[in-house]
Amino acid sequence: MKPIILTGDRPTGPLHLGHYVGSLQNRVKLQPNYQQYLIIADSQALTDNYDNPGLVRDNVMQVALDYLAVGLDPKESTFFIQSQIPELYELTCYFLNLVSVARLERNPTIKDEVRQKNMKDAIPAGFFCYPVSQAADILAFKADLVPAGEDQNPMIEQTNEIAKRFNFLYKQDVFKEVKSMVGSVGRLPGIDGKAKMSKSLGNAIFIGDSADEITRKVRLMYTDPNHLKVSDPGTVEGNVVFDFLTIFDPNKAEVEELKAHYRRGGLGDGVLKKRLTDVLENMIAPMRQRREQYQNDPEYVREILRVGTANARQVAAQTLSEVKSAMGINY
Amino acid sequence: MKPIILTGDRPTGPLHLGHYVGSLQNRVKLQPNYQQYLIIADSQALTDNYDNPGLVRDNVMQVALDYLAVGLDPKESTFFIQSQIPELYELTCYFLNLVSVARLERNPTIKDEVRQKNMKDAIPAGFFCYPVSQAADILAFKADLVPAGEDQNPMIEQTNEIAKRFNFLYKQDVFKEVKSMVGSVGRLPGIDGKAKMSKSLGNAIFIGDSADEITRKVRLMYTDPNHLKVSDPGTVEGNVVFDFLTIFDPNKAEVEELKAHYRRGGLGDGVLKKRLTDVLENMIAPMRQRREQYQNDPEYVREILRVGTANARQVAAQTLSEVKSAMGINY
Repeated sequence: MKPIILTGDRPTGPLHLGHYVGSLQNRVKLQPNYQQYLIIADSQALTDNYDNPGLVRDNVMQVALDYLAVGLDPKESTFFIQSQIPELYELTCYFLNLVSVARLERNPTIKDEVRQKNMKDAIPAGFFCYPVSQAADILAFKADLVPAGEDQNPMIEQTNEIAKRFNFLYKQDVFKEVKSMVGSVGRLPGIDGKAKMSKSLGNAIFIGDSADEITRKVRLMYTDPNHLKVSDPGTVEGNVVFDFLTIFDPNKAEVEELKAHYRRGGLGDGVLKKRLTDVLENMIAPMRQRREQYQNDPEYVREILRVGTANARQVAAQTLSEVKSAMGINY
Repeated sequence: MKPIILTGDRPTGPLHLGHYVGSLQNRVKLQPNYQQYLIIADSQALTDNYDNPGLVRDNVMQVALDYLAVGLDPKESTFFIQSQIPELYELTCYFLNLVSVARLERNPTIKDEVRQKNMKDAIPAGFFCYPVSQAADILAFKADLVPAGEDQNPMIEQTNEIAKRFNFLYKQDVFKEVKSMVGSVGRLPGIDGKAKMSKSLGNAIFIGDSADEITRKVRLMYTDPNHLKVSDPGTVEGNVVFDFLTIFDPNKAEVEELKAHYRRGGLGDGVLKKRLTDVLENMIAPMRQRREQYQNDPEYVREILRVGTANARQVAAQTLSEVKSAMGINY
């Protein structure tokens, strides 16, 4: 049996190259050798978008299209919608009894998000508890691995604590340890040079972007603000065009030569931006094409989600039944 | 249509006369004129008994037997097991997004229980969130009334806050206000004179107690410790035998005479205890008989629970469907 991976996204917007570099690319690579469950985490998205469920609803489909666009294959991976698996809510509620309020308060990821989102004294209880809901997702599918950025490690720790506590309290080895799997490439900067590409910062290139949008966004890209004339020496570090070329340009040797040339002076931003536009267009064009093809057949995408969710639900139901049997509440 | 009542008990032990006086008696009285949903709240009991689910499991049946014993009629009222209605978990999770952590921290009932149960820094998150789960129970059945002691009023307030916030956020009047219904008789003291009858304090007379147990417990009952000789004047206040006679003796006039006599002196505790034993035995005997009859037919009781739970589930599923439709997440 292939090792099991649980991974996914909150459907709060279409996915962009930050997602591609951080996880989607890796998922496509892992696809043949792992049983991947791809969760479209709409319930989790609602914990801080409860006042805008329409946004979440609309983006369920967008995320599914992005998955298909990058080459995730529903025949190999299981696409599913979190909210359509009631067993996950039930597991969440049982697991909430195994975690103290103080433990949730100490979760560094939650602390960071509360700060970033300026929630202060209005932290929704559902948001506060979402690490437990995430543990339920991971444990329901008995995942061996969860691909996660370093900021997600506290979530994996919380999951393993719940798993151990459950096994200990109910004297059965229902759950095993899950391991995190840190992706090879880290974070992609936004086109404005900010540390993180993000839809809400308006600095993202999306997986479905048109050729014109790519051209426009690369043209806006942050380079070296002191590189005024072509003949001036330029700085490569913190220069987003070079960051992108380093990651996306298949010809690594040429990129190194370009960096040396830029540092010496005599290489204009325009030339580099043209090159990057071509590189991105070459990569995105087939994705965009697949995305459009599936977008024109929404019934087929819905069928993929229906079948995937039904399959995922069977697995979650089996786990829930083991959980209830271990707890002795299977009346 | 009859007004709807939601009421019930945590199955952590068999029910006693404190429950009878505080709520069961009232439920029997209300039965003909209300649609009563009787929740056996095992999921809620697990929030602070997660380390002993066997206790909860065993007492689901005991509570059902007690309901039948006191005269609650499954043809008129709906008996159901909370954990067997997954829709309640789902509603709980959606409602958790509508309540802030700070609001839960302010709940006075939770604060009291945390103190009483000495939970300190190990408050289970499930326990912390149970007011929201209780709101889900009440709102799932669109109860008009919830019979509740005064210490439960914060729960009703929390429920109404969630209902209002839901209707406001999702722009539909899915929920209406629920009202609390305070019972006529308050709290029954324990046989030891402590303020509250409670299984854990070991001062309870149970609905299924045998005649011998009743005799023994009344004999142990706290009276006036300074009433040493029959001829001594005695104190009626805080004298548990008189507390019980006042509540349970059908002959109110005679009880008043006995009080006067006791105050004057010349009336022994033995006489009073004999009278109370008879009063309690007269009341409990038919309950005990019904309890034994049903206990000998567990399959019939299970069938009552199965049918009741199935009926309750239909109602909860209908509400959940309205909730998801209002939120626009009914994919």
